[in-house]
Amino acid sequence: MKAEIISVGTELLLGHLTDTNAPYLAQELSALGIDCYWISQIGDNQGRMVDLLRLAWQRSDLIVITGGVGPTEDDLTRESIAALLGEAMTVDPVLEQQVRDFFAKRNVQMPPHNIKQATLIPSATVLPNPIGTAPGWWVEKDGHIITASPGVPREMKRMWEYEIVPRLRRRLGGQVILSKTLKTIGVGESTVEDMVRALIHSTNPTLATYAKQDGVHLRMTAKADSEAEAAGILTDFEAQVRAIMGDNIYGVDDETMEGVIGALLEKERLTLATIESCTGGLFASTITDVPSSAVYFRGGLVVSGPEMMIDAGLDPEIITRFGTVSQEASQALARLARQRLGADVGVAIVGIAGPEQVEGKPAGTLFSSVDKCGVMNTSARMMGGSRSDFRRLATLSALSLLRRCLLGINW
Amino acid sequence: MKAEIISVGTELLLGHLTDTNAPYLAQELSALGIDCYWISQIGDNQGRMVDLLRLAWQRSDLIVITGGVGPTEDDLTRESIAALLGEAMTVDPVLEQQVRDFFAKRNVQMPPHNIKQATLIPSATVLPNPIGTAPGWWVEKDGHIITASPGVPREMKRMWEYEIVPRLRRRLGGQVILSKTLKTIGVGESTVEDMVRALIHSTNPTLATYAKQDGVHLRMTAKADSEAEAAGILTDFEAQVRAIMGDNIYGVDDETMEGVIGALLEKERLTLATIESCTGGLFASTITDVPSSAVYFRGGLVVSGPEMMIDAGLDPEIITRFGTVSQEASQALARLARQRLGADVGVAIVGIAGPEQVEGKPAGTLFSSVDKCGVMNTSARMMGGSRSDFRRLATLSALSLLRRCLLGINW
Repeated sequence: MKAEIISVGTELLLGHLTDTNAPYLAQELSALGIDCYWISQIGDNQGRMVDLLRLAWQRSDLIVITGGVGPTEDDLTRESIAALLGEAMTVDPVLEQQVRDFFAKRNVQMPPHNIKQATLIPSATVLPNPIGTAPGWWVEKDGHIITASPGVPREMKRMWEYEIVPRLRRRLGGQVILSKTLKTIGVGESTVEDMVRALIHSTNPTLATYAKQDGVHLRMTAKADSEAEAAGILTDFEAQVRAIMGDNIYGVDDETMEGVIGALLEKERLTLATIESCTGGLFASTITDVPSSAVYFRGGLVVSGPEMMIDAGLDPEIITRFGTVSQEASQALARLARQRLGADVGVAIVGIAGPEQVEGKPAGTLFSSVDKCGVMNTSARMMGGSRSDFRRLATLSALSLLRRCLLGINW
Repeated sequence: MKAEIISVGTELLLGHLTDTNAPYLAQELSALGIDCYWISQIGDNQGRMVDLLRLAWQRSDLIVITGGVGPTEDDLTRESIAALLGEAMTVDPVLEQQVRDFFAKRNVQMPPHNIKQATLIPSATVLPNPIGTAPGWWVEKDGHIITASPGVPREMKRMWEYEIVPRLRRRLGGQVILSKTLKTIGVGESTVEDMVRALIHSTNPTLATYAKQDGVHLRMTAKADSEAEAAGILTDFEAQVRAIMGDNIYGVDDETMEGVIGALLEKERLTLATIESCTGGLFASTITDVPSSAVYFRGGLVVSGPEMMIDAGLDPEIITRFGTVSQEASQALARLARQRLGADVGVAIVGIAGPEQVEGKPAGTLFSSVDKCGVMNTSARMMGGSRSDFRRLATLSALSLLRRCLLGINW
């Protein structure tokens, strides 16, 4: 079954609203095993909407429309579907009563134009909307299906889940789709692609790579007649991907690097403290994104220059000999984080976020150190990009170093 | 000029990515006075991409494409444009050298497939991309324009702003469109709308409100025959908006709250230090987003519980009597930030990011205090939303308090 999604509303064409309905529906269609080949945003203009529907009718079996089912003159989805199919809209007495009841319950007079929301065409049946005034349409004709639901995400999602998905499942029969994402760190996307090249042409499961803010993701998707069978296909395939990517895989699906680190610290009953300069608090902020972080995070210090580093206990001699942005300073600060803040693990990040150079070293220079119960590990790197890229990548790099130290993996 | 936007990438059709490029470009087109009638998301499939381009070519004068210009086999935007126009792609020696230089500078061997990024067709000229490997295309033929830029938002926006907009302006001829955004804080979007209701129906300039992460933005857009005339229209209108919104306006266009605060601190030669609990470093991280922040930011402390607050110097009696999440604790910590970290201004943020309650107080509780040279100001608030919403809003709220204290505005 080929599907397409159409989001209706002039505010989408003006950029006043980001269309979050389409990605939700796209994920849902993919999970149902329905191929979605086209997504469009179209304005409140009947001529252009009918043109788009005509095209969609030619190329798709299922057209999922959101928006344009409200009561105003600008809401033209029903009118456009009726025009596409050459059918006349009539007021349905049962629907009319429901719309009137909705207003009566709220002690509000029904505005006259709301009668539009009680209309149907011969090919349409109603999709109830108990949390709003706009019911949806389920249209079936000549082997095509059109669904129309409100654009308000909450109403759309309810209608999708309770009304549309059950009807679609009945049409689709058995097939199950399962996906799983493996998250990697430490290798770029094209290198990951090279590493898994032998698997990337697999058709069931499929494998796709995505470069994300927190590393490269590998998404595996299996189709089968039962959930157990799909899960089995995924398990075998995952083992192959893991054999290739090894330690670089740090998490699965919704797991985050900071969550994985938190779980490792909790498991080993270790506490953590941080001293950071160039990341300015972003590392501590990421660590404390985890709700249970208070259990293991002792605290952090954000230092902005040599003076504050010395206040924090750094030997001035280290600054004189090596500078604040040096392996030596990062190691001494990691030790201070552990000892002064009374934690088992100390992390220190020093570097140059830019745009200016510091101490004769270029923007992009980064030293992170982890002192785990007295065992020191340091990563020295050069990073490209803007100031905010640097800070993000430096944080990710230090998280990755910390994870490896906690797991006892050599860097 | 009729325009349409096409975002390319199978991840968009799977819902793995929300298309934020299209709304950005839609706003930009609208600000240029170009009508955008269609937005589509299409997958990495050359057949379907060429079909869509053919349709776009019929109905639009300008086709703005993002995505699909990377080096992999899946990146098919260049190939699709070439197929649409029936032109052959050839490697451009100058471009090839630039792509090679990009890798050489990073001491990385250029992967062979990156040569694709050095190709052109006769109707295309190159749009430089100094912050990535994928250059864009500017295509002009038979009165139509196609632009192709990377899908990575940062690279896309730079290319749009520096390369595409100037070229479009030259094509648009005489009329000048000028926009200016006033950024407000402390008032919700519907209140802002009510406040400026008398101005919102103005047609030149137009006024639109946008609820953003850093407050409500008011965007004014003027059209005129000359830049001077447009600027004059904007200046008069801005005075009216400022008369209504007053102190709530904290910045203009690209100005950020942290940048405005930094400028105030620099101007008054004041230094800043922070102690934060519930925001876990996000406040310090936001302050240090500003490149010159090392001039005024002395440093910060991230404390995760009563023990660390006492280590930092907080009187245990305050915790016993009022709790760590209290006006009293926030004020004492702001004073400590100022005195212990040796700064003129101390900021402290205590609160409950959730999801669990603390000390019998609900998630969402927030106290921020600013001690400016011994003068204390405190804001006590309740915030809704998720843990990450809370942390973001708490940071914004404390920034707003700090700005008001620096300006001497009563809270």
